[in-house]
Amino acid sequence: MPAELPPDLAAAIRFDAAGLVPAIAQDSESGEVLMLAWMSADSIAATLASGFATYWSRSRQKLWKKGETSGHVQRLVELRLDCDGDAILLRVAQTGPACHTGHRACFFRAVRDGALAEID
Amino acid sequence: MPAELPPDLAAAIRFDAAGLVPAIAQDSESGEVLMLAWMSADSIAATLASGFATYWSRSRQKLWKKGETSGHVQRLVELRLDCDGDAILLRVAQTGPACHTGHRACFFRAVRDGALAEID
Repeated sequence: MPAELPPDLAAAIRFDAAGLVPAIAQDSESGEVLMLAWMSADSIAATLASGFATYWSRSRQKLWKKGETSGHVQRLVELRLDCDGDAILLRVAQTGPACHTGHRACFFRAVRDGALAEID
Repeated sequence: MPAELPPDLAAAIRFDAAGLVPAIAQDSESGEVLMLAWMSADSIAATLASGFATYWSRSRQKLWKKGETSGHVQRLVELRLDCDGDAILLRVAQTGPACHTGHRACFFRAVRDGALAEID
């Protein structure tokens, strides 16, 4: 049986039509924004129960414990919800790089002089 | 005529079915994650052209220059794109609180002891 969400948390989250909510992962020590992924009710419950960030993979349509194969897990430090309940912030302790490209964070491209450049 | 996106940026962004992409606003000084909102191609172009964060309001279905009425604007410091092009990170200089509730950031609730609590 899957873990359940705290009732007040479940009531406060506004899932989209697909039953998902965007989740920002932030390094709790450095403040660096690591990635954005998506969570279902089950993935939030699994994250709270296990203490490790677990998302919903939209491409694979299944729960995705971050780092399950790579070992680059995210230990949950704190789960926050925004004012209108439609975005989650996971403050995490990241093991290894967060990005599948090997970059520490997924946001390694930025606009520079009117063009997209790799900055990290 | 609306401003246009840099072509390589336009090609790299993967907008969703509604033509939107989630955008995280982060305080460029403190690293605090301020809010999550949504951007259209036009709102990204307006942000780059004006130097102030401009989102797409899903509730009002129009461009929304953050702080237009409240004065709580976000001066753009840097616009980043993630590895697969489906999330944006705006590093900004925030004037006043980012949240319409008056909190500095929208993520002022967190799970504590299995329940949702106001923490800021």
